[in-house]
Amino acid sequence: MGAEQLKHGNRTDIFSKCDDYKLAEEYKAKGYYPYFHPLDENEGPVVSIEGRDMIMAGSNNYLGLTADSRVKEAAIRAVKKFGTSCSGSRYLTGTLSLHVELEEKLCDFFQKEAALIFSTGYLTGQGVISTLVQRNEYLIMDRDNHACLVVAAAVARSGLAKVERFRHNDMNHLEILLKNSGEESPKLIVSDGVFSVSGVICKLPEIVSLAKKYNARVLIDDAHAIGVIGKYGKGTASEFGLEKEVDMTIGTFSKSFASLGGFVVGEKRVIEYVKHNSPALIFSASPTASSIAAAIASLDIMKKEPELVTQLIKNAEFVRTNLKQLGFNLMDSRTAIVSVLIGDQEKTVIFWRKLFDAGIYVNAFIRPGVMPGQEMLRTSYMSTHKQEHLEKIVELFAKIGKELGVI
Amino acid sequence: MGAEQLKHGNRTDIFSKCDDYKLAEEYKAKGYYPYFHPLDENEGPVVSIEGRDMIMAGSNNYLGLTADSRVKEAAIRAVKKFGTSCSGSRYLTGTLSLHVELEEKLCDFFQKEAALIFSTGYLTGQGVISTLVQRNEYLIMDRDNHACLVVAAAVARSGLAKVERFRHNDMNHLEILLKNSGEESPKLIVSDGVFSVSGVICKLPEIVSLAKKYNARVLIDDAHAIGVIGKYGKGTASEFGLEKEVDMTIGTFSKSFASLGGFVVGEKRVIEYVKHNSPALIFSASPTASSIAAAIASLDIMKKEPELVTQLIKNAEFVRTNLKQLGFNLMDSRTAIVSVLIGDQEKTVIFWRKLFDAGIYVNAFIRPGVMPGQEMLRTSYMSTHKQEHLEKIVELFAKIGKELGVI
Repeated sequence: MGAEQLKHGNRTDIFSKCDDYKLAEEYKAKGYYPYFHPLDENEGPVVSIEGRDMIMAGSNNYLGLTADSRVKEAAIRAVKKFGTSCSGSRYLTGTLSLHVELEEKLCDFFQKEAALIFSTGYLTGQGVISTLVQRNEYLIMDRDNHACLVVAAAVARSGLAKVERFRHNDMNHLEILLKNSGEESPKLIVSDGVFSVSGVICKLPEIVSLAKKYNARVLIDDAHAIGVIGKYGKGTASEFGLEKEVDMTIGTFSKSFASLGGFVVGEKRVIEYVKHNSPALIFSASPTASSIAAAIASLDIMKKEPELVTQLIKNAEFVRTNLKQLGFNLMDSRTAIVSVLIGDQEKTVIFWRKLFDAGIYVNAFIRPGVMPGQEMLRTSYMSTHKQEHLEKIVELFAKIGKELGVI
Repeated sequence: MGAEQLKHGNRTDIFSKCDDYKLAEEYKAKGYYPYFHPLDENEGPVVSIEGRDMIMAGSNNYLGLTADSRVKEAAIRAVKKFGTSCSGSRYLTGTLSLHVELEEKLCDFFQKEAALIFSTGYLTGQGVISTLVQRNEYLIMDRDNHACLVVAAAVARSGLAKVERFRHNDMNHLEILLKNSGEESPKLIVSDGVFSVSGVICKLPEIVSLAKKYNARVLIDDAHAIGVIGKYGKGTASEFGLEKEVDMTIGTFSKSFASLGGFVVGEKRVIEYVKHNSPALIFSASPTASSIAAAIASLDIMKKEPELVTQLIKNAEFVRTNLKQLGFNLMDSRTAIVSVLIGDQEKTVIFWRKLFDAGIYVNAFIRPGVMPGQEMLRTSYMSTHKQEHLEKIVELFAKIGKELGVI
């Protein structure tokens, strides 16, 4: 094919890659397309999709508070008082007294000096990490960290930070990277507290002891840990009694806090620095009053009703124990996430579709999102799932698993 | 100073930079600190700060719709029906029928094939641009583009895209960069439609004609253009009658749409590609029902009441004409932003404080945010400002400007 023909095929057009992307269409044609199914209603454990009630076993609504009347009422009161948008960033015209109130409550809950709110959880990592880790300084992170931290690392690298990634939960590899970075280099270790795909908890005691040995600071992303593990659902540091040793914790409001946004807690001088130097904070519109009020109400409920956290773990454990007994290959977790390895692309989407048709919504993790052989159905639980929901999930996994020869 | 002393001073600690940051404390001590002042109430043009009613002349609430009862009611209805959070990304469990409805309405409004919603405006640029501009492809952008596009470029560069920046609104420089990138290279030109600091409009006809000549695609960030310029406030492409020539427009819901979130409109095949390949979409929790409902209500109002856009421009023009006549040095704009160059750091913060004490809230743009000599007071207007608000703003600018020898 000559250059002329190439040009007529218009490969020089930056949009031409879009014509090559066929995966979504192929799955749609086969009826297996597992993405972007719109919910018509959302009551927590039961949602309405395409006119049918379904059991939701794929949400991050861990404590089930998105449908809690107290949380909804708080959100509504905030809309009435403050309107629907802050129309500006926290830095300039977008700070409400509500933001300050939530920051104070987060400090109190996590027993840290200062807190700072971001517009989304996804932005929080890049807002904090790429601001703190600068030219020739080291960001050392787990290879399985959430995608938002991978982007945070890319942004830090654009500021000439050095980024190293250690093999998932491999403390020997972490130690090698710390050693290689040199004694005098400033270093930040970053790990998910609970890994989002598998539900596995990081090896915090080892991370903290290596950090001490090599003079590094530790930041934990507790998106999937808060409301789930630790005393009162306070997350990974609390789970291990290492609240003082973890320098910063970041989290999200879109899971246990039944809202949208993110936050960081840590030392006052560090938070003040981030507050005045982070593009993701300074140039992004602040979270709405409604979302902040929902997060405040959820935090208050978490403090008053620790039984929600207990129930959540009990619910996940019920499904986990039963699926394990049935012979499913589960990822080794004790959090709210129960991921079922299928290990085959086609089987995973067919399994997903059969569950969907039977009224169970789970998440299919397939290529290119996961490595070949790691295709899985990721399920996750809420405090508000009823026993009948959990039993139906187990029953259908058993039935379809046998049909497809997975168990 | 020996190595030991260095270590005791703990310069190897990644947090030590936080101790060097003194600017905020210095301004606080002087009483000039212009950031993070919390609002106790927000009625649009009038807000309550530290217990006092103030005229807000620094918000992006261009059409004043954040306090509109129809918008607030829509947000409240959505909380009642869908709860306070989607608890997941659009990709998996976080798509509501409301998201789809807003996407359809955006297609209709902008007369484009497809639309896609992101959680924040700040994320939209990186969600679209770094997904589309890949290894060895060219991203060519204006040097004064918004900070979120600078981050988008950093993320694209981490995927080995080539990033070039042309001097602000300098079409000769743009042409040189296009020529140098080579005929066969895929290219995307990215510019703010209305630049956020100055309110200046980009030279869209020239950009579009250069794009045609060099086989590049064009993406315009219309954050500060929608609701402000073009027919019915449809933005920069509409302002120049170049709707077909602009390949993609991105925008935000946190300004004229009285909400939080962002969107892109363009060709279906391109949006479908972004939808299935953009980390900022796939891994970020979706916008809340409340925010989407507020944006839908605002869009409906924009279509029905084009007089809001006319009034907005009239309001900004009133202040602009008067400040110009008084002898202030204004940036050359005809949008909702009226930026007053002061050109001195100290004078800018003193001017800001005197306006604040007199009950007018504007934004102080000082170093390190702007280059030395570019220190300014940025003011911006709403359709809902009353004539008395505007007159008071002009009167106080005149008084303080004379006091400080600015005019």
